[in-house]
Amino acid sequence: MSLNFTHDPAARSWVETANDPACDFPVQNLPHGVFSCQGRDASGGVAIGDAILDLLALAKAGVISTEAHPVLEAAAEGSLNRFVAMGNQAASLLRGEIFRLLVLDGAGPNPVRADPQRFIVPSAQAMLHMPLRVGSFTDFMTSVHHVTAARKARPARELNENFLHLPVAYNSRASSIVPDGVAIVRPHGQVREASGQVVFRPTSQLDFELEFGALIGPGNPLGSRVGLDQTEDMLFGYVLVNDWSARDIQIWESRLGPFLGKSFATTISPWIVTAEALAPFRVAPVPRLPGQPAPLPYLDSARHRAAGALDIRLEARLSTRNMRQAGLPPERIVATNLLHCAWTLPQMTAHHTSNGCNLEAGDLLSSGTVSGPTDEEAACLFERTAGTLPLDLPGGEQRLWLEDEDELVITGRAERDGFASIGFGPCGARIAPAR
Amino acid sequence: MSLNFTHDPAARSWVETANDPACDFPVQNLPHGVFSCQGRDASGGVAIGDAILDLLALAKAGVISTEAHPVLEAAAEGSLNRFVAMGNQAASLLRGEIFRLLVLDGAGPNPVRADPQRFIVPSAQAMLHMPLRVGSFTDFMTSVHHVTAARKARPARELNENFLHLPVAYNSRASSIVPDGVAIVRPHGQVREASGQVVFRPTSQLDFELEFGALIGPGNPLGSRVGLDQTEDMLFGYVLVNDWSARDIQIWESRLGPFLGKSFATTISPWIVTAEALAPFRVAPVPRLPGQPAPLPYLDSARHRAAGALDIRLEARLSTRNMRQAGLPPERIVATNLLHCAWTLPQMTAHHTSNGCNLEAGDLLSSGTVSGPTDEEAACLFERTAGTLPLDLPGGEQRLWLEDEDELVITGRAERDGFASIGFGPCGARIAPAR
Repeated sequence: MSLNFTHDPAARSWVETANDPACDFPVQNLPHGVFSCQGRDASGGVAIGDAILDLLALAKAGVISTEAHPVLEAAAEGSLNRFVAMGNQAASLLRGEIFRLLVLDGAGPNPVRADPQRFIVPSAQAMLHMPLRVGSFTDFMTSVHHVTAARKARPARELNENFLHLPVAYNSRASSIVPDGVAIVRPHGQVREASGQVVFRPTSQLDFELEFGALIGPGNPLGSRVGLDQTEDMLFGYVLVNDWSARDIQIWESRLGPFLGKSFATTISPWIVTAEALAPFRVAPVPRLPGQPAPLPYLDSARHRAAGALDIRLEARLSTRNMRQAGLPPERIVATNLLHCAWTLPQMTAHHTSNGCNLEAGDLLSSGTVSGPTDEEAACLFERTAGTLPLDLPGGEQRLWLEDEDELVITGRAERDGFASIGFGPCGARIAPAR
Repeated sequence: MSLNFTHDPAARSWVETANDPACDFPVQNLPHGVFSCQGRDASGGVAIGDAILDLLALAKAGVISTEAHPVLEAAAEGSLNRFVAMGNQAASLLRGEIFRLLVLDGAGPNPVRADPQRFIVPSAQAMLHMPLRVGSFTDFMTSVHHVTAARKARPARELNENFLHLPVAYNSRASSIVPDGVAIVRPHGQVREASGQVVFRPTSQLDFELEFGALIGPGNPLGSRVGLDQTEDMLFGYVLVNDWSARDIQIWESRLGPFLGKSFATTISPWIVTAEALAPFRVAPVPRLPGQPAPLPYLDSARHRAAGALDIRLEARLSTRNMRQAGLPPERIVATNLLHCAWTLPQMTAHHTSNGCNLEAGDLLSSGTVSGPTDEEAACLFERTAGTLPLDLPGGEQRLWLEDEDELVITGRAERDGFASIGFGPCGARIAPAR
């Protein structure tokens, strides 16, 4: 995806809060989401600073070109499946026009700036929803550090040889995906106690997994394989993902991969950061592991190697009820980078369709736990504490696993010299007690 | 679900073909599906003999009670998600009225019998479609014989202890589910050859798995657990399932359960046989394995034990191109029974929601390979041939795995003394060469 005027690092918005360098949503980002305000049904919007551009109001006002109008109408709906199915070129057309309406020094008359009350909703007054219906959710496992570190807590096993040859994945559960802010109820499940007794009780090993997800735009017909270079047109945008995990349930049930140990909930950040917004943040070469053989041709191309992999800084912060009551800020417990993944999202997409499996608009493909080699890069508690080495928190508390009322928030930033840095907004939730 | 006049074994239909004892669709069955004819969009129908009752025509004619009319309208749509979400009671109401319109000796005037051309479509003129959109597809593994026999071909492993405590399952792929008759394209995939070389090529170990699936009617909200006795209201109906498998792809990729080795296609029989139609065919006690501990309370109840498990005879027949050219009939290669499963569909449903995972209308839960102890009860080639012991076919051919142009058809029948036996229609497909 080529760079254009919407990537201009000097551009500023007349929505002042968008110009704060720490803001996730400058005018160079323009992510799509779905929001509602009091008394209004959910509809589409674009985040700008601490506000939302109301696309339904924009569509009604008729201030967008005839060419972009059908795209705007789809992006203004209460679920963005139809919009993402239109693909990156359609989204780019709309992005260009929205950029011109929000940028400070746009040429010509600007009806949005002339009447902001009509088009701009303060984020504080809005509730964010799932941006679309996720039809299917596929979770990969692409960090060799995750696989290796996970073994500390288990009987030693060798790294499966296939890890170096393909992006390992499993089908996860789509129905229980929720957006940022929805409380996660501690799940019950069948577990085997250390005594050997099998019981049904709330999990005592609740964990998070910091991941990074891609949302599919146009899908592919069943029976068709998609070449690696063609996958770029299928990857519409990106969200942060927390793949909540109940380790005791997961370990006891596991025979055909994760099931109830994961399917109780997955949290995503509700703003879809488009592939175009992230275009400046791909760095070559694509990561390779020591001793990794050259990928088979269906997972390799000159264009893919030259385009590189996304460089996204990813963090997780934890706060406990005691910390909040003591006025302590959330503690950063993970700081990692998407570049730790051994496979890119285009490679994951090509692999996913390599058997003719059809992807559909709104499908979510996630990276798996984005762990690096150091302790702070361990992107889940299973790696960090191994269930035995407590994590120290401000105020004197410790954690092996998440406890009730803990709040875990994932954030992400794309940064590169010469470009405005952009973010994803929060992907967080509080743990509610078992029911 | 209690028995009523729609289960009367003496009832016959004025649609003559429904009275053939070998017919899958007597007046006691009345399964729901979606069909189209030349020049008409897909819409809902009910199978009767070798014909289909056109529910759209029925809805337009206004010959159904005011109470049942909204149910009929949902059942007449081109996708039955809304209909199944109405639940078993609504479906039962409609079933009673349709039974009266199709039975031979119904009381009062019968507008359908008076004008069959308007309401009855010969099956030969109709094309069957997916009856609904399957949102999520969960595949269980509930036959101990499948697990054990599968081991013949692999290094010996003990039966996972959890098998006796819970119905093991994984999330499968919903988007690639197709109805009976859609050709299955031999998938490509990454495999490791016996030489150790890793290559990308069409599978050479294409297999089927004979399974039995339940479609979810009303779902449950995220975070709610559904008690075993309440699952009965969620199980709307049943279909036959062929979980096509590419063993070489599956074995090499497997690390977090099945993925591309399965996701290229799954075939279902397109008629939804309702829970009410199958009510006579539950037999107590629920199967138990030798040495199996009593299920935990969330998987056990007096009502469930008394209701019993479904007794369904399941078969698979194979024909090769040579067999067809020689005029040889398809060869029965599997004859098994659903009672070989160690867990019932209500138990699978209770387990699935035990962590608060939300099921949705149209979700498919499948039994896993329904294998019994004998050779003919081995419900996939992996068990039958173990990749080394060829299966002999009429005409002198042999099979270790499925070959191009092979046609594999699964059928099922529910039979019990004192009741009209009912079936599911075919669940079959031909293997098309790799593209």
